[in-house]
Amino acid sequence: MTLDTKLKSLVQLAEEYHKFAKSVNWNLHPKGLYEPIQYMMGLQGKSLRPQSLLMFANFFSHQDETALKAAYALELFHNFTLVHDDLVDQSETRRGKPTIHLKFGVHAAVLSGDSMMIYSIKMLNECFSELNKPDLMPIFYNMAIEVCEGQDLDMSFESKQIVLLEDYLKMIRQKTSVLLATCFKLGAAIGGLDRKERQKAYQLGECLGLAFQIQDDWLDFYGDPSITGKQRAGDVLRCKKTILLIKALDVASETVKETLLKHYQQNEPNKIEVIDQIFNQLQIRQIVYELFMSYRNECNQIIESFTSLHEIHKNQIRDFINQVLNRNS
Amino acid sequence: MTLDTKLKSLVQLAEEYHKFAKSVNWNLHPKGLYEPIQYMMGLQGKSLRPQSLLMFANFFSHQDETALKAAYALELFHNFTLVHDDLVDQSETRRGKPTIHLKFGVHAAVLSGDSMMIYSIKMLNECFSELNKPDLMPIFYNMAIEVCEGQDLDMSFESKQIVLLEDYLKMIRQKTSVLLATCFKLGAAIGGLDRKERQKAYQLGECLGLAFQIQDDWLDFYGDPSITGKQRAGDVLRCKKTILLIKALDVASETVKETLLKHYQQNEPNKIEVIDQIFNQLQIRQIVYELFMSYRNECNQIIESFTSLHEIHKNQIRDFINQVLNRNS
Repeated sequence: MTLDTKLKSLVQLAEEYHKFAKSVNWNLHPKGLYEPIQYMMGLQGKSLRPQSLLMFANFFSHQDETALKAAYALELFHNFTLVHDDLVDQSETRRGKPTIHLKFGVHAAVLSGDSMMIYSIKMLNECFSELNKPDLMPIFYNMAIEVCEGQDLDMSFESKQIVLLEDYLKMIRQKTSVLLATCFKLGAAIGGLDRKERQKAYQLGECLGLAFQIQDDWLDFYGDPSITGKQRAGDVLRCKKTILLIKALDVASETVKETLLKHYQQNEPNKIEVIDQIFNQLQIRQIVYELFMSYRNECNQIIESFTSLHEIHKNQIRDFINQVLNRNS
Repeated sequence: MTLDTKLKSLVQLAEEYHKFAKSVNWNLHPKGLYEPIQYMMGLQGKSLRPQSLLMFANFFSHQDETALKAAYALELFHNFTLVHDDLVDQSETRRGKPTIHLKFGVHAAVLSGDSMMIYSIKMLNECFSELNKPDLMPIFYNMAIEVCEGQDLDMSFESKQIVLLEDYLKMIRQKTSVLLATCFKLGAAIGGLDRKERQKAYQLGECLGLAFQIQDDWLDFYGDPSITGKQRAGDVLRCKKTILLIKALDVASETVKETLLKHYQQNEPNKIEVIDQIFNQLQIRQIVYELFMSYRNECNQIIESFTSLHEIHKNQIRDFINQVLNRNS
């Protein structure tokens, strides 16, 4: 294990990843199964997960090809969850294009999704065999189960009037954070960090995921629609149990709580304005921003606490965190 | 590795398996995710797959607990495929009870199915780690991918007027045989048979699966509905591309072929009688029965060829094969 102080830049890592991703061949038979996978993996997203893994893997080691394959496997898993979630949520677009079940049919969404999951596990298993670290697989399985639990929890919120903060945090942790945390941790393990440091990498991913999701809810309401590219307050219009609503119900008096619930469940033409007024009155913009900042600060504290990383590595992690969280969309 | 000549009987193995299966706890949270799994795994099927694995595992070794867990993992995987197939095929009943998507909703069929798959891989990985044989996992992954490919191939037949015998055999091999073959092979590997003998176990499972599926098509048309418990010629009514149709189209003259295709695609009230007449004329009952018997005989030849098994083991395999294929339903 050699600590590398001549680091590849984040941009370089992203470029290497995209080059690798393009080289993966999904032009296989039967077409009905593989065409949707090719389509989905061609809709390039932010690639946060592969970059998370590669960044840590690159601090110490030059298992380039293996790390790239592991990064791809985790992105494939992430895309499997998107395909099945889109089907379950009846979403119409993903990354600006029609979702798999709309473009190729329900059977394709189910079967191609299943295949993506199996391939992701198969590829990851191959990586860990190459690295002689088969004991890393359970980290992946446990994450995968949590992701399914998180999606189920999220769906169960739809039929609830009030969601507890604790349950909301559990849901976003399972649905978003654990996958990011696993990418950090597996990257750290591939790179060669010891158990204690790997655990810190995991916690960092968890915190980043929570900050990211809370920010997502915040931007939906307070972001600039011309920048986010999304309808303003789409979550409110769909009566989603966002952190803004949960925090508002938490701090409101009984009377305000009742008014808020009444208006949140209805879909009056002026719904957004009414909700905005109540949120203003309760200082929700600031309260949720502070919650976001508390997780962001926790990320920085975790970065400080790595004992086997140099300042140059820590700076790269900081850059990455900033890149993820300094966004308007 | 000790060759055990005091074999447990097939009944005993089945009992041990069912006892183990009942002890697995799916009473977990969130309920929305785990209740459908508990329901599905409670609808006891024939348990052919676990029995296949346990029979071979028991010939040589007494890794009882580990073998039982591996057997359960494969049954869990099989049930995952049933949950997703039922959703895709819009089936209403499974083992005489409502299917998951009808009882719990589409989201449950998708997510609980996904979780069953992940748990099956996780459990199997644990078994192979206990046995210090992590290199067995790829056998499972390759099977899982083939099963998805087979289901896609099966679906693609719906829009085709004519299916080639070669494609039909590929489909049933992927959809049914490879899982059974994998159970035999993994059982043999857990038991301690060498690579050559494991490969024979795999081929045996492949042949048995083909014989089973061909028999299934045959029974649908020529079986006694009061015994099969299914509607007579349900496949014909649903215009399924069965081996009977494929063989009939294969041997028929151009004129008969045309008549057969015309009647097969329509749904006249006397469809079954018309098809029956054409099949009789072409001797399809006998032709397909002979195809079935050729695979059944191949099973027997493979059993003969095992060099590390005693006659007592071979007899148990023969009993098992007879139990699977001597059926009316």
